[in-house]
Amino acid sequence: MKLIGAVIDELTPGYCAISLVPRPEVLQQHGYVHAGIVATLVDSAGGFAGFTLFPAESSVLTVEFKLNLLAPAVGDRLVAEGFVVKAGRTLSITRGEVHAESGKGGAQKRTLVALMQQTLIVMHGKPDPL
Amino acid sequence: MKLIGAVIDELTPGYCAISLVPRPEVLQQHGYVHAGIVATLVDSAGGFAGFTLFPAESSVLTVEFKLNLLAPAVGDRLVAEGFVVKAGRTLSITRGEVHAESGKGGAQKRTLVALMQQTLIVMHGKPDPL
Amino acid sequence: MKLIGAVIDELTPGYCAISLVPRPEVLQQHGYVHAGIVATLVDSAGGFAGFTLFPAESSVLTVEFKLNLLAPAVGDRLVAEGFVVKAGRTLSITRGEVHAESGKGGAQKRTLVALMQQTLIVMHGKPDPL
Amino acid sequence: MKLIGAVIDELTPGYCAISLVPRPEVLQQHGYVHAGIVATLVDSAGGFAGFTLFPAESSVLTVEFKLNLLAPAVGDRLVAEGFVVKAGRTLSITRGEVHAESGKGGAQKRTLVALMQQTLIVMHGKPDPL
Repeated sequence: MKLIGAVIDELTPGYCAISLVPRPEVLQQHGYVHAGIVATLVDSAGGFAGFTLFPAESSVLTVEFKLNLLAPAVGDRLVAEGFVVKAGRTLSITRGEVHAESGKGGAQKRTLVALMQQTLIVMHGKPDPL
Repeated sequence: MKLIGAVIDELTPGYCAISLVPRPEVLQQHGYVHAGIVATLVDSAGGFAGFTLFPAESSVLTVEFKLNLLAPAVGDRLVAEGFVVKAGRTLSITRGEVHAESGKGGAQKRTLVALMQQTLIVMHGKPDPL
Repeated sequence: MKLIGAVIDELTPGYCAISLVPRPEVLQQHGYVHAGIVATLVDSAGGFAGFTLFPAESSVLTVEFKLNLLAPAVGDRLVAEGFVVKAGRTLSITRGEVHAESGKGGAQKRTLVALMQQTLIVMHGKPDPL
Repeated sequence: MKLIGAVIDELTPGYCAISLVPRPEVLQQHGYVHAGIVATLVDSAGGFAGFTLFPAESSVLTVEFKLNLLAPAVGDRLVAEGFVVKAGRTLSITRGEVHAESGKGGAQKRTLVALMQQTLIVMHGKPDPL
């Protein structure tokens, strides 16, 4: 996250938003942000969202996620959001979305670039160093 | 790919192997390589594998992928492999695996850390700059 | 669909709801509706939802879907809904949900039992017999 | 499974094969076996394969699966196979394949029609009635 320059914009129970102002290093051959970076952002957003509803003294690991890439990730800013759909005792399920934003104010353009569905596992008794 | 220090080890028709010697910047809170980096490696390996079987004058985009994380990505080296399962005219399907390797020679330890299934789309008439 | 006794409750642009009153034949070993039946319902709901936004003289095929099973599918009625997230020229992306409903009126209980993300392909020039 | 006429052909540690001779009721609008039936077969094959490696006094539930449909499911016989990739204490990961077979002997045609990746959860202390 630090490596790519992403920041957590919002973290509330069951929700997390992470944003990134793309630097040249994270672009792939067509000038879009690399799918792996998009995956990193939204996997992290889902993981943090899930973690907000976990018991104390536990940590989170991603079991799996599935990511659809809907449009080129091009813009001034990428915003990845994670939403908890079900918070279970052992497993939690989240959904995620990534939007690319360009321009400002009334002229702002916002495009959905990726859609995620994720399974997290609660690691009881292993508090997270973060 | 350059940002994280990954290199292509092998690229043959329908197959690609990419490896990474993890640097501290790609580790997450538990000291494992971040799931997003693992995703980046194996998504790229699948994409390159698919691309080897595409017609000339075309390029590749990932439609979606699904990634299971099986074990902590800890080791001296991560190796991501992509295998084409079906090369279609419009869509190609690949599978991917990521292993973590530690030690050398007879003492080498190799652990399967991630499993992927991916859909690629052929972009006809849009040659890839790579 | 006929085999398992499912019916289309609603079909509007970008949306479809399909319901099923479970019969003993569709239950698995624990008395829940089999995951495959849940998959059939929601894959169909997503496919029909996508089809509503397709051009004339085309038909729909599922490229892939991913299904999370969140709770046992037990109830008087299962309702599967499909929602189009992006309707593209070649590919469309949908999300789906399945709820189990029990009881009536104020005493009704509604449980989310499954969550889906799906990729459809538009088959141009192949009108659907349905 | 009984409803659609599927039978278990092989069940060995970490592996299961299930086959189906398609009846008219399981076909969709194009005359192919419905994607939901293909999903039912391969989800079941993966689940049984996982179950073979579970401890005694436990049962199996599907957490999630992801299915790519590669070719129309048309043939005299569908064969779904499930393979355990990792058998964990809480979660097990399987892969699955479905082939359509037509003809006999040297003239037999075998087509890969679906590819699956699945997460199972071990329900300890809940022996399966099957």
